[in-house]
Amino acid sequence: MTELRGPVRIVGTGLIGTSIGLALGRLGVVVELVDADPDNALMAERIGAGSRLVQIEPQLVVVAVPPDHVGEVIVEQLQQTDAIVTDAASVKSKPLHDARALVASPEELSRYVGSHPMAGSERSGPLAGRADLFEGATWAITPHETSEPAAVELVRRLAEAAGARTVELSVADHDLAVARVSHLPQLMSSLAAGTLVDAPAAHLELSGQGVRDVTRIAAGDPGLWTQIVSANSPALSGLLEGIRDELDRLLIALGKEEATDEVTAVLNRGVSGAIRVPGKHGTPHIDLVPVLVTIPDRPGQLARLFADAAESGANVEDLRIDHSPGRPVGEVELSVKPASVDQLVEVLTERGWSVHR
Amino acid sequence: MTELRGPVRIVGTGLIGTSIGLALGRLGVVVELVDADPDNALMAERIGAGSRLVQIEPQLVVVAVPPDHVGEVIVEQLQQTDAIVTDAASVKSKPLHDARALVASPEELSRYVGSHPMAGSERSGPLAGRADLFEGATWAITPHETSEPAAVELVRRLAEAAGARTVELSVADHDLAVARVSHLPQLMSSLAAGTLVDAPAAHLELSGQGVRDVTRIAAGDPGLWTQIVSANSPALSGLLEGIRDELDRLLIALGKEEATDEVTAVLNRGVSGAIRVPGKHGTPHIDLVPVLVTIPDRPGQLARLFADAAESGANVEDLRIDHSPGRPVGEVELSVKPASVDQLVEVLTERGWSVHR
Repeated sequence: MTELRGPVRIVGTGLIGTSIGLALGRLGVVVELVDADPDNALMAERIGAGSRLVQIEPQLVVVAVPPDHVGEVIVEQLQQTDAIVTDAASVKSKPLHDARALVASPEELSRYVGSHPMAGSERSGPLAGRADLFEGATWAITPHETSEPAAVELVRRLAEAAGARTVELSVADHDLAVARVSHLPQLMSSLAAGTLVDAPAAHLELSGQGVRDVTRIAAGDPGLWTQIVSANSPALSGLLEGIRDELDRLLIALGKEEATDEVTAVLNRGVSGAIRVPGKHGTPHIDLVPVLVTIPDRPGQLARLFADAAESGANVEDLRIDHSPGRPVGEVELSVKPASVDQLVEVLTERGWSVHR
Repeated sequence: MTELRGPVRIVGTGLIGTSIGLALGRLGVVVELVDADPDNALMAERIGAGSRLVQIEPQLVVVAVPPDHVGEVIVEQLQQTDAIVTDAASVKSKPLHDARALVASPEELSRYVGSHPMAGSERSGPLAGRADLFEGATWAITPHETSEPAAVELVRRLAEAAGARTVELSVADHDLAVARVSHLPQLMSSLAAGTLVDAPAAHLELSGQGVRDVTRIAAGDPGLWTQIVSANSPALSGLLEGIRDELDRLLIALGKEEATDEVTAVLNRGVSGAIRVPGKHGTPHIDLVPVLVTIPDRPGQLARLFADAAESGANVEDLRIDHSPGRPVGEVELSVKPASVDQLVEVLTERGWSVHR
């Protein structure tokens, strides 16, 4: 059985690389930090993610550089070391394709296995690194045709060492999956948010929770997302063509006097898709029951609410604050399992909360 | 000055009509309940939203029937009574257009003023009604060319009586605004969610918070949304054509080897739009600083966290639980004002929480 002994060389000490270093450091694995920007490597070293100088040959190299450079760095590391090499890029076909173009035969890539730790933050850079970034997160592992089984196994150990849950997928499947559950939602969010740029301020006053949810991720880093979206253009283009065709049908339907069937079809399809998105702990979100509580907007009220909720024995599985502009009171939606609802509502009502199911 | 004395006749005792009745009942205003479905009116009466039989002529009629029937009911009520008439439909051009088609001269509509109480719930029907549904919500008032000033004033009194904040807009402006901040996000959410219908289950395992946020409202009632979207098709079509054109440009860009400028342009535009969406209490969300706290997923932990946060003196303005599938711990994002961050982080850290900024 392949054990992760180290040293592990991390090339690229941004958020992801630094966090992997911090997670491995907790387990006593020796980590070597490499970055084209010496300041980054220094910062990562200072916060305990590893050392810039390690004399021992690495067992494993993790390439965590920006998407556009991943392929070439993978090949460099394969050629400079005898280590297993993985990368952390969020698109898997392009690094493999780029790496293949740089080697003489596919066998040279047998020590390489792609992977994708699916955790992130709105912050970036080494100082945003955290030892627990991957705790319970999904870490996709994407072997290609010539990947050695021992290499796949070692990358799995790395993911587990960081606290992640691994999912093995082919390179093509991975890229189609992230196009669906990450890149397409990102572009749809950006397109929806883009229509607000020229809106008069009075129009925006009518914003509610829906537009806030749909446009939240549109605020993400355009530089990084350009690289991700461009790298996954083949998988993404097929999905976007489907959206464009549905939009065309919608526009034709909206131009008619009484053609609402096409509109209903798009909305029905949306419902069928939305309920497939896994919620907390992989359970579908329809298993949870929302309980609405009105709360005054001042310090300490949430503390009082959650103390009362805890006394009812209910575990709050999810929560959301609705904050309509100008609203002097807030509304908190607590989501709990169906079996906990009655007791929760009873206890909160007893204690004077305004509760709605 | 026009006073709201009542009686107020409510035609249509669904969520909105019943909630208006309950809000007015609190103030001692006599409310008459009318519904084509006698069971609905009976249920609304039983929960205290008003009476089915009121002998006195109404001062104000609120039409809260499904979107497709609003125009005809407005005209019926204008012809049956001498009351001011308003409606609660979420699109304002179509009811006015439908009503105009049913009267001999525009002057017959002088007692009518459209309005749109912007509150709702994932639940519907009279039993979902709540006296505080409109507390602090936005209530748009949309006078047309022949609306009497006294009618506009009385509808404003109604909105204020229900606890709402009023915004006055022209009918056309209102419909363009809701197309932008509500109907277009709804369709974009439905289209994005629709791509998940045929996805293999393994692909959905890679879902994160982004796709959950973008697709949440796609789970809304397709029947109601078909009526809303169809009623607002003129305003919506223009925006959707813009999206379709941007999609076409994106698809061309993604088909090229190195044409990332168009992709970046779409993403940049998304950022500019996203930061314009008002957050809590009308303040832009960028004014708040997120503080991340890792919490074990068991009862009582949120209570302990909020008690500790309250002791730091920080008011938690917004919060979010991140629930990656399979994650044994949760992560809570507390958003606070910049001035409160240091004290909050210090107090939480002291008490043993794992805190990240």
